[in-house]
Amino acid sequence: MTDLVLALDFGGTKASAGVVEPGRRVWRARQVAAVPSGANAATDLAHMLALAQSVLAGDRPTAIGVSFGGPVDFDAQMVRLSYHIPGWEGFPLTDRLQSALRAPAIIDNDGNVAALGEQRFGAGQGCASLLYLTVSTGVGGGWVLGRRIWRGHHGLAGEIGHMTIEPDGPICDCGRRGCVERLASGPWLARRARELLEARPDQGVRLRARVGGVLDAVDARAVAAAAEEGDELAWEVLRAAAEALGIAIGNAQNLMDPERVVVGGGVSKAGGRYWAALRAAAQARAMAGGRCEIMPAALGDEAPLWGAVALAQDHFAAIDLGRSSSP
Amino acid sequence: MTDLVLALDFGGTKASAGVVEPGRRVWRARQVAAVPSGANAATDLAHMLALAQSVLAGDRPTAIGVSFGGPVDFDAQMVRLSYHIPGWEGFPLTDRLQSALRAPAIIDNDGNVAALGEQRFGAGQGCASLLYLTVSTGVGGGWVLGRRIWRGHHGLAGEIGHMTIEPDGPICDCGRRGCVERLASGPWLARRARELLEARPDQGVRLRARVGGVLDAVDARAVAAAAEEGDELAWEVLRAAAEALGIAIGNAQNLMDPERVVVGGGVSKAGGRYWAALRAAAQARAMAGGRCEIMPAALGDEAPLWGAVALAQDHFAAIDLGRSSSP
Repeated sequence: MTDLVLALDFGGTKASAGVVEPGRRVWRARQVAAVPSGANAATDLAHMLALAQSVLAGDRPTAIGVSFGGPVDFDAQMVRLSYHIPGWEGFPLTDRLQSALRAPAIIDNDGNVAALGEQRFGAGQGCASLLYLTVSTGVGGGWVLGRRIWRGHHGLAGEIGHMTIEPDGPICDCGRRGCVERLASGPWLARRARELLEARPDQGVRLRARVGGVLDAVDARAVAAAAEEGDELAWEVLRAAAEALGIAIGNAQNLMDPERVVVGGGVSKAGGRYWAALRAAAQARAMAGGRCEIMPAALGDEAPLWGAVALAQDHFAAIDLGRSSSP
Repeated sequence: MTDLVLALDFGGTKASAGVVEPGRRVWRARQVAAVPSGANAATDLAHMLALAQSVLAGDRPTAIGVSFGGPVDFDAQMVRLSYHIPGWEGFPLTDRLQSALRAPAIIDNDGNVAALGEQRFGAGQGCASLLYLTVSTGVGGGWVLGRRIWRGHHGLAGEIGHMTIEPDGPICDCGRRGCVERLASGPWLARRARELLEARPDQGVRLRARVGGVLDAVDARAVAAAAEEGDELAWEVLRAAAEALGIAIGNAQNLMDPERVVVGGGVSKAGGRYWAALRAAAQARAMAGGRCEIMPAALGDEAPLWGAVALAQDHFAAIDLGRSSSP
C-alpha cells in the first residue's frame, strides 16, 4: 500500500485539501472551495471533511498535516480561535480529524506552516533559517530556525505585522500606533491611495483610469498596477508601504540574522519597483546589509498546503514519509 | 584531579579571568584588570594569559570558555575584529589559547555569552528561551533559544541596538536614523539632557545640583539619579529612552515570543521609574502583552564570565563538567 499524506488548509474564506505521495512534489489530487457564508466551526469542519474524502477517493491517509488560519495551541493541538468563523474557540481539531479520518494528525497556524512549506519546497529550499512573511489583508509571518518551526514560548512568534514602525503613526486595527500592518497591508494601502486621490484631484491620472474614476474601486492591485505604469501618486503610496515593510524586515534581520527572508501574499506581487524599494529599505536598516536574500514566495496560495505536508513528514517521521527527499 | 573551567572575558577596557569547579557557583579565583592603554591584540592576549596563570595558580584547566568584546566568527573560532583594540582582525584566538594553556577552548562574542550566562546562572534560570540586552555605552544583545545560543546565519543575530524605532529620527553612530542605541544608550541620553539643560535654563534644578552646575559632567547616572528624585527634565529624557527601549523589546517579543527578556548594563540600573516606563512601553506594543517577563540582569558585570563557563560546559560536554547541576 502506498503511503499518502493528506494536507488540509483551513483559510478564513476558503478551504483546501490535497493528497500527495511522500517525496513527490505533485499533488495526486487537490481541491479548493470557498467557505460557505454563515459558517461556524462545525459546518467548516464538515465542509473540510467532505473535501478530504473527495481528494482521498476512498484511500486512507498515512498522516494528516493541517494549516489553520488563526491562533493554534500547538502543545495541546487545539485551535485557539478563528478571526473569521465563530465556534472555533478551544476546538480539539486534531482529535476530531483523527477520529473522522482514522490517521494521525498534526495542526499548526498558517504563518508557521507556510514558512515551513516555503523552506522545504519553495523559495527557502536548502536554507536552515528563514523568515516568511505574507502581506495581503494583514501582515503575518513565521520562522523556521534550524530547519524547524520556531513557535515561541506562548506559540505567538512571527507576529511581524504588529512590529512598531512609527511610534506616533496612524492607529492600526489592533489599537496600536504605526504597526507595519497599518502601513503596508493591502487594504490600508488602498485606503491611503483613495485619500490622496480625493485630496489631489489633478493627480493619479493612471490610477483613476484603472478604476474608471470610481474611487471606491481602488484596491491594492490597482495601486500596484498604476505604480508600475508610472503613476506618481500610486507610486508614492506603494513606495511608503514597501519602505515600512523593508524597515520591519531589516529589524528582523538585525535581531535574528536569518539565512533568507521570503515574502508572499497578494501585495508581494506588486512588481519590480515595489521589490526594489522593499529590498533597499531592508538593506539600509540591516547591519548585515545585502548578505541576506529577500525573495518572493514560490508556492503562492499553496504554501500552507505544502507546509502541512512537511509538518506531517517532520512530526510523523517514524512513519516512512519520504523525508529523505527533503533538503 | 579536580576538573576546572577557566573563563576569560576580553572586554574593550578591562579583562577578567575566573576559575571554577564545574557545578559550583562560586569562583575559586577571579581577577579583573584594566586593559593597558595603547594595547594591541598581542599585548591584550599576553595580559590575559598572565591573568589566567594567576587565577589558575599552577593548575591546568580542563576546558576554557571565552567571551570576546567584538564580532567573532564562531564556526572558524576566530575573532573578526575589536572596535576598541587594533590587531584583532582575523585573530585565531582559540588556537592561541589552546597552545598557551594546553586545554580545549571555545570563544564567542560577549552578547551571546552574556545571554547564556544569564540563562544558565542568572535572571533567566529555567527559561528555555531568552533575549538578553545590555544597555550602556551601546545597546547590544544575544538570544538563547531552546537553551542554546542562537547566532544567526552570519553570526550577527542579537543586533537589537540598531533596530529602527524612529525611521526619521536622529542619526546614530552607525549612520542610520532612529536606532534604539541612538535613543536609549547612556551617552546619547546624557547628551540629550545637556541639550535640554542649555535650552531651558529654568529647568532641571536637581540635575544641575548633582553636577555642581557643570553641564559637561552630566552623564547617564546623574540623569537617572535626578529623575528618581523627581527632576522633571531628567525624567523627560530618561522616560524617552525607556520608551524607545520598550518599543524595541515589544517588537522583539512580537517576532520571537521569548519566555523572558533580561536587561543589563549600566543604564538598566536607572531605577524604578525607568523600569516601570520600560515595561509599560513593551507591554503596550507586544501582542502577548504582559505574558513575557522583563527582568533586570542578575549577574551584572560577571554575566560574560559566567556565560563563558556555560559555553565551555555545553561545548565540551564529553568532558564531565558538572552539566547536571545546570537547569
